[in-house]
Amino acid sequence: MKKVLLLGSTGSIGVNTLDVIRNFKDKFEVFALTANSNIRLLSEQIEEFNPKFAVIKNEDKFDDLKNLVSGNCKILSGEQGLIEITKNGDYDILLSSLVGFAGLAPTIESIKRGKRIALANKETLVAAGAIVMNLAKKFNAEILPVDSEHSAIFQCLVGEDVKNVEKLIITASGGPFRTLTLNDLHQVSVEQALNHPNWNMGNKVTIDSATMMNKGLEVIEAHWLFNLPKSKIDVVVHPQSIVHSMVEFVDGNIKAQLSLPDMKLPIQYALTYPERLKSNYVNTHFPSLKELSFYEPNLEKFKCLQLAFDVMEQGGTAPCILNAANEIAVEKFLNKQIGFTQIAKLIENSLNEININPIVDFETILECDRQTREISKRFN
Amino acid sequence: MKKVLLLGSTGSIGVNTLDVIRNFKDKFEVFALTANSNIRLLSEQIEEFNPKFAVIKNEDKFDDLKNLVSGNCKILSGEQGLIEITKNGDYDILLSSLVGFAGLAPTIESIKRGKRIALANKETLVAAGAIVMNLAKKFNAEILPVDSEHSAIFQCLVGEDVKNVEKLIITASGGPFRTLTLNDLHQVSVEQALNHPNWNMGNKVTIDSATMMNKGLEVIEAHWLFNLPKSKIDVVVHPQSIVHSMVEFVDGNIKAQLSLPDMKLPIQYALTYPERLKSNYVNTHFPSLKELSFYEPNLEKFKCLQLAFDVMEQGGTAPCILNAANEIAVEKFLNKQIGFTQIAKLIENSLNEININPIVDFETILECDRQTREISKRFN
Repeated sequence: MKKVLLLGSTGSIGVNTLDVIRNFKDKFEVFALTANSNIRLLSEQIEEFNPKFAVIKNEDKFDDLKNLVSGNCKILSGEQGLIEITKNGDYDILLSSLVGFAGLAPTIESIKRGKRIALANKETLVAAGAIVMNLAKKFNAEILPVDSEHSAIFQCLVGEDVKNVEKLIITASGGPFRTLTLNDLHQVSVEQALNHPNWNMGNKVTIDSATMMNKGLEVIEAHWLFNLPKSKIDVVVHPQSIVHSMVEFVDGNIKAQLSLPDMKLPIQYALTYPERLKSNYVNTHFPSLKELSFYEPNLEKFKCLQLAFDVMEQGGTAPCILNAANEIAVEKFLNKQIGFTQIAKLIENSLNEININPIVDFETILECDRQTREISKRFN
Repeated sequence: MKKVLLLGSTGSIGVNTLDVIRNFKDKFEVFALTANSNIRLLSEQIEEFNPKFAVIKNEDKFDDLKNLVSGNCKILSGEQGLIEITKNGDYDILLSSLVGFAGLAPTIESIKRGKRIALANKETLVAAGAIVMNLAKKFNAEILPVDSEHSAIFQCLVGEDVKNVEKLIITASGGPFRTLTLNDLHQVSVEQALNHPNWNMGNKVTIDSATMMNKGLEVIEAHWLFNLPKSKIDVVVHPQSIVHSMVEFVDGNIKAQLSLPDMKLPIQYALTYPERLKSNYVNTHFPSLKELSFYEPNLEKFKCLQLAFDVMEQGGTAPCILNAANEIAVEKFLNKQIGFTQIAKLIENSLNEININPIVDFETILECDRQTREISKRFN
């Protein structure tokens, strides 16, 4: 019986994680749930899964949540509550699906305790990859990817030696704007950008997917997770999202992981690895599929992806700047303060404006993130 | 330094194997080469690879070969020579790429010595799977598949537990007649049948590919190799031959092995497993590929595939009858004694005519094979 601490239980990954746990009540129990502000859904989840603790990040909602919840679930609140529960809670697996930089601090607390980290928060590795991976090694914490792409690569590497990897081939759906021209891109609306062809996800990641920044973040994540240089990571556009990613080995053999898109597959694998448990989420019947196709990504049109490759090369705090500026830019786009193609422009401006420093410690990251947000907010 | 005994060095697999060994002269040496009758090529290979022994199966060619070969390679001949060298030779790996039932006896000799068997002779497992796998277990002989499909499955299973396999999905190019109607099939010529769209192989396997019997033999081979029942083996037509086969696990995740078609990849892997050695046989660049597509196989049109599934169900000597009758039928077709669709008909007649017996020992197989050939030869 493994105890799961689920950070971000009301988001898309959180809800899917609880679907998985519901199927395996004899193997997993929910130790704690946390949410940003959706107290209605959080209280329903508490009712069903009966965790020992729950954390509501938005402190203003604390009293309302208390009133909604009966039983003996202890309610904490705020960033402090998140840290408290990850630092001192009695759990086995942290499923970290907070959105953005906010996921970093609690994930680090959990790594320091040598827990299994099922990582859906890619910004953790983007902003602080070197620190996070060093800590994971030092404290013997397993980091299991939850992103479908990284789970695919992880699965392809089971039983293989990473020194035999010639290339990671990360697939990208290309998002809703794959076939638009650069000119068309200037005009796209928030509503169009939120309409992803294959995956149903939260707003931040859906916009990241439309700009292909999501793929850029994944490239940097893969770089840290699998300890491979930029030269060994390729992106290939694959609109059908059936091949979730591939690994090419030095002998020319390529392994891929495939399935109809369903986040429950990588989530379950991150929870059960190295075991595989029988489940029936999808039925991938190849003759029923449309043809599978592959294209080069257009880095001029999807400048965010190019920027991600660039910051990986630059190293230091550059990826942290990219990530923070992107969070601000996406927020501005969702608030209709800037247009779609200004997202990349804003990030580029931030990268030009802000000094890139070597990463000395966690404080370097925090300060870089803070400074980038402050400066990025000024751009239009 | 591993010593390789290469059975069938002048065939397509044999030539490819020597291409691989040529790349890794510091890791592999050729202990012995054998050929059926192509003494010109065999003597060139002896010149280049300087084996201790060579066997010419066709005894009439013995003297001619002796005259062609200088140096101190000892020449043997006939079936007896094959058995002698596999039974007493000082080698580490047997690469068995003889065509048809002829590969069985020497392979068994090698298994009894606990050698690594790189198996390209699928008829060995089709005719005598139960006996061969039991012997391999008893004598601790590793059987490594050389067929691209089985190599793909084997690679997908590295680090995985075969008890977690939901299904093997064996891909089939569909051969040159994939899009013909059943009526068209009656008319196809030997020349058309020998023109495979993706692979350049010997005549027997090319015709087997056109009838899809090749896929049928592979299904039976997979059944024995991976110890999985018929219900867990599917065939999917994939005309591009990029996905070489797949494994679906109980949790819905599917792993595939892919590459541009080149037999040197599975051959090298069978020689080097569990290592992977750097090579440059193919450059699989996904954006340059045509789309990948998948179809259900048409079992009414390709009756040989249906027959293979049937004999796997029947068990005993049924697959041995299928195999022997198929060898006779293909020979008759190549000699223009029967038409293309009569191949399946002849096999069906043999299966109806000949008693299916439980397999008691190796003699059962030999007798069944002998009897089937005798009876099958009479059919037109």
